[in-house]
Amino acid sequence: MLNKLDSILSTNMAAAKRSAIREILKLTQNPNVISFAGGLPAEKSFTVDDIKTCMNEVLETNGTKALQYGTTEGCVELREQLVKHYKSQGVEIGVENIVITTASQQGLDLTAKIFINPGDKVIVGLPSYLGGLSAFRAYGGVPVGVKFDEQGMDPVELEKTLAQMENDNDMPKFLYLIPDFQNPAGITYPESRRQELLDIAEKYNLLVIEDSPYRELRFDGVEQKMMYELDKSNRVVTLGTFSKILAPGFRIGWVIAHEKIVEKYVTAKQAADLCTPAILQMTVAKYMEKGMLQRNLDKTIDMYRIKRDLMLDCFRSYMPEGITWTEPQGGLFLFLNLPEGMDSEELFHIAIKNNVAFVIGKVFHCDGSGQNTMRMNFSFPTHEQIDTGVRRLADAIKVMLGD
Amino acid sequence: MLNKLDSILSTNMAAAKRSAIREILKLTQNPNVISFAGGLPAEKSFTVDDIKTCMNEVLETNGTKALQYGTTEGCVELREQLVKHYKSQGVEIGVENIVITTASQQGLDLTAKIFINPGDKVIVGLPSYLGGLSAFRAYGGVPVGVKFDEQGMDPVELEKTLAQMENDNDMPKFLYLIPDFQNPAGITYPESRRQELLDIAEKYNLLVIEDSPYRELRFDGVEQKMMYELDKSNRVVTLGTFSKILAPGFRIGWVIAHEKIVEKYVTAKQAADLCTPAILQMTVAKYMEKGMLQRNLDKTIDMYRIKRDLMLDCFRSYMPEGITWTEPQGGLFLFLNLPEGMDSEELFHIAIKNNVAFVIGKVFHCDGSGQNTMRMNFSFPTHEQIDTGVRRLADAIKVMLGD
Repeated sequence: MLNKLDSILSTNMAAAKRSAIREILKLTQNPNVISFAGGLPAEKSFTVDDIKTCMNEVLETNGTKALQYGTTEGCVELREQLVKHYKSQGVEIGVENIVITTASQQGLDLTAKIFINPGDKVIVGLPSYLGGLSAFRAYGGVPVGVKFDEQGMDPVELEKTLAQMENDNDMPKFLYLIPDFQNPAGITYPESRRQELLDIAEKYNLLVIEDSPYRELRFDGVEQKMMYELDKSNRVVTLGTFSKILAPGFRIGWVIAHEKIVEKYVTAKQAADLCTPAILQMTVAKYMEKGMLQRNLDKTIDMYRIKRDLMLDCFRSYMPEGITWTEPQGGLFLFLNLPEGMDSEELFHIAIKNNVAFVIGKVFHCDGSGQNTMRMNFSFPTHEQIDTGVRRLADAIKVMLGD
Repeated sequence: MLNKLDSILSTNMAAAKRSAIREILKLTQNPNVISFAGGLPAEKSFTVDDIKTCMNEVLETNGTKALQYGTTEGCVELREQLVKHYKSQGVEIGVENIVITTASQQGLDLTAKIFINPGDKVIVGLPSYLGGLSAFRAYGGVPVGVKFDEQGMDPVELEKTLAQMENDNDMPKFLYLIPDFQNPAGITYPESRRQELLDIAEKYNLLVIEDSPYRELRFDGVEQKMMYELDKSNRVVTLGTFSKILAPGFRIGWVIAHEKIVEKYVTAKQAADLCTPAILQMTVAKYMEKGMLQRNLDKTIDMYRIKRDLMLDCFRSYMPEGITWTEPQGGLFLFLNLPEGMDSEELFHIAIKNNVAFVIGKVFHCDGSGQNTMRMNFSFPTHEQIDTGVRRLADAIKVMLGD
């Protein structure tokens, strides 16, 4: 059978690669390596005791419901908490606008399943989140990249791309955007940019996927309205997750959209995994209800702000001339630019010998560009690791520069 | 946007229907209705206290690991427990042969994602599990039904079908079988039948998907070897789940296959949901390690045996002439045959007025046959509900028969 295996794979599977990031993470499991490669929350942000309290209460008061099959839409108590959460931001939705997913990666997978036929184009940023690209490609989707400026996706470039696609009668299925603390670029789109992009989506009558895993993690600056809120014609689908603000190990995310779009997600999810663990959904609902989420979020934000500041300070102290970086107002990542012509993949091999790791920027660029870029995570490493790791990285860069 | 929604759906999504069973379940939410329609485990089979103990231990001793991202393959401690579990049945596998899934529905979804191109045929039983059919159809798979006799899929019919398909140069991607306490038929394939079907798979060099959610729930009779064990050429992929033996609310299942096949499931799962909740996997591992799984399984089996016996007794007492049924040695379901020409969908509407529900057999038959069949669940209803419900159902049948 195994001889034949490759010949019976689906076309999409035959083209699939294992996630470059996850493979890189394996390389960095050497305990001497300081890794800025992952996207892991700090373990100090996990409030184990609070979670235990909520879970025990759920099992004591509602154990059989927590352990039985749940609805595909998700537990009502959790959806009600999310309605409140958005209301506090001024966004009016009802429980019927929400479906709970097995974290936001499933939100991306279902998005692809619902909208993508093999060969369909989708618009993504240059750069864009690799997990999004993988999910779209797994259904035969073809990402078309649009360049960024310092405010996010460039509307002039987008218009140019769409006009060309319209001319070729090959319109994309949707725009995929991460407007808050973009992964990997660390950029936040100002409201004016969000509106400009929405106006373009309106003009071409396109769906917009607003992927928003980091929105709640703002360290400073002013909160920008969600594209879901700015949208006037039910074209925005927003993906959220508790992975970065409670615990990735819970795998609880959500999709927000018009009821008619939510219905498609429910149908797609039924065949994918029927429902998301009720016990975890009910625990999260209780955790929110008790105000634990907000309390822990405040602490996490303080912790990450200090780490970001420290990383930026280390950059300023240790990096040679000619290296630039983004200064994110939140989230987990910042993005480094090496001088034009320098290859971050080459740097990676030098760096790993120096016991420091990052993710090469090329994997976030669907057109293969971005060779001189790299993503750095600041949420997971300790203060000491940030200082030592950035120093090692700067040394590796100096070696490459021939200093 | 909404006006355009239907026109931008993927071809597979446009063809998708919401699960007939789950829609029926909504009809039966009237508290006066006794439902034999679902596939729910009895809530008495949930050992809430044991689960709580294990979960607290996990959070106390290993909380940060439980709450952090896990590997896509699944937690090693759970895979090790599964290796032991199979070893006790005489099946030798290693942790590298296992990937943990978000319950076995995801095992089915990933199977489809890995192997099915739109239009690809797959061989299924007449009848077969609806969740399997939905998962395959969601990727454009086309189920081809092969008739059952009292030992499961008929090998003569299978040979005939495959010979024809070979002739048409339209071979199926795999055989989909549920050899233990089949859903919905309640049939267990004897070892000789398993071997016959494997020989045919060997002859045509076909992959076999052995879906095995009920195997552990044997009430009487002799355990039959897994097809995975009988297989000599790495062509069997087995799907398992804790949904029926621990708690469906955990959404923990697994796939067993040769390492090279497991690798494909890992790649597919990465893009689908990255990983399954570590906290739940670690809790299940502890639950198995402490012997709680086996202890509860013994109790559950006793409980379900009594319920099955009671349902069969009620059938014998209340059913009019001409109704036949399977007598399963385990699992959750049995299958009823109405006289030829009688339509169980028509019966459903009479029955629901009589406050009793079941699933019409037609939905399990990919060719639209089975109009005179119906599936009955005996694990969830109480003894009293079984007696009263079967009586109501018999009354409805008598109305249809004009008695």
